Amino acid sequence: MDAGYITPFVKSIQNVFSTMLQLPVTVNDPAIKTGNSPSHDVSGIIGMSGDVTGSVVLSFKMETADAVVALFCGERLERDSADFADAIGELVNMVCGGAKAMFNDKKRVSISCPSVIVGSDHGVSLPSDIPCVLIPCTTDCGEFVIEVAIRETTPSSEASEQAAANA
Amino acid sequence: MDAGYITPFVKSIQNVFSTMLQLPVTVNDPAIKTGNSPSHDVSGIIGMSGDVTGSVVLSFKMETADAVVALFCGERLERDSADFADAIGELVNMVCGGAKAMFNDKKRVSISCPSVIVGSDHGVSLPSDIPCVLIPCTTDCGEFVIEVAIRETTPSSEASEQAAANA
Repeated sequence: MDAGYITPFVKSIQNVFSTMLQLPVTVNDPAIKTGNSPSHDVSGIIGMSGDVTGSVVLSFKMETADAVVALFCGERLERDSADFADAIGELVNMVCGGAKAMFNDKKRVSISCPSVIVGSDHGVSLPSDIPCVLIPCTTDCGEFVIEVAIRETTPSSEASEQAAANA
Repeated sequence: MDAGYITPFVKSIQNVFSTMLQLPVTVNDPAIKTGNSPSHDVSGIIGMSGDVTGSVVLSFKMETADAVVALFCGERLERDSADFADAIGELVNMVCGGAKAMFNDKKRVSISCPSVIVGSDHGVSLPSDIPCVLIPCTTDCGEFVIEVAIRETTPSSEASEQAAANA
């Protein structure tokens, strides 16, 4: 994956967490994801399409998610409430929105609405033919990880999507 | 949600399962999702953007996912393998691709790459401000459910996304 797609996520996660949560984020070295996905408790997922195709996942351990949502909403929320999921979804939405605005020469990228997964020890798999970069982050609320799996949309991948549409 | 968005998914799930798996699907009455999401073991999630914005989730119990993947791939696969996740992802991709081709007058809809969640008893939450329709399905391999949460993209929702991008 072009490293030019990683820097925007690093900057955006720091912008969003410092602006919205007053929570500084230390971003550790990104690494290519290999083998099994790490297990998570709470994940916010957003899809990207247009000139790039892919998915972005923001994943937390349960206690970290509790603390981040409390900072975002000003109070602790029940994990099974709609507001809890909406808060995680809004965070990943802001991170992706901020990142896509920093993509080089990529004007036509749209992002889907977020999906939020709550469940102890789940794994998130993105398509194995798209390189996935793990960005580990550390904060005073605990650690979390962003997974970015995007590729530039090629005519052949559009054709394949069209073939699926016609199946 | 416009019922015109549900029929394409009903038709597409039947097309894809009968064509790719030779597995007839009985589609039960769709219902608006309220309250907590049902818990799942394996979920394939795809985002849609463009003239409509939303997410589609195809969720299975573990045993049903095992059987469906075995039909799709011709052999049983390990649940933690990349091929298992890719098979579930390809199924949801074909269902969404087929459905979007049947949307009325909606030419500009793109779909993201799929994310696949594997984890016992996880819940998937979609944004609470988008109506979500649950479509329960029955097959000889067991039951599964499709959740469709999409809305037409309005100038105000585009503006809100832009605001997030500028935050």
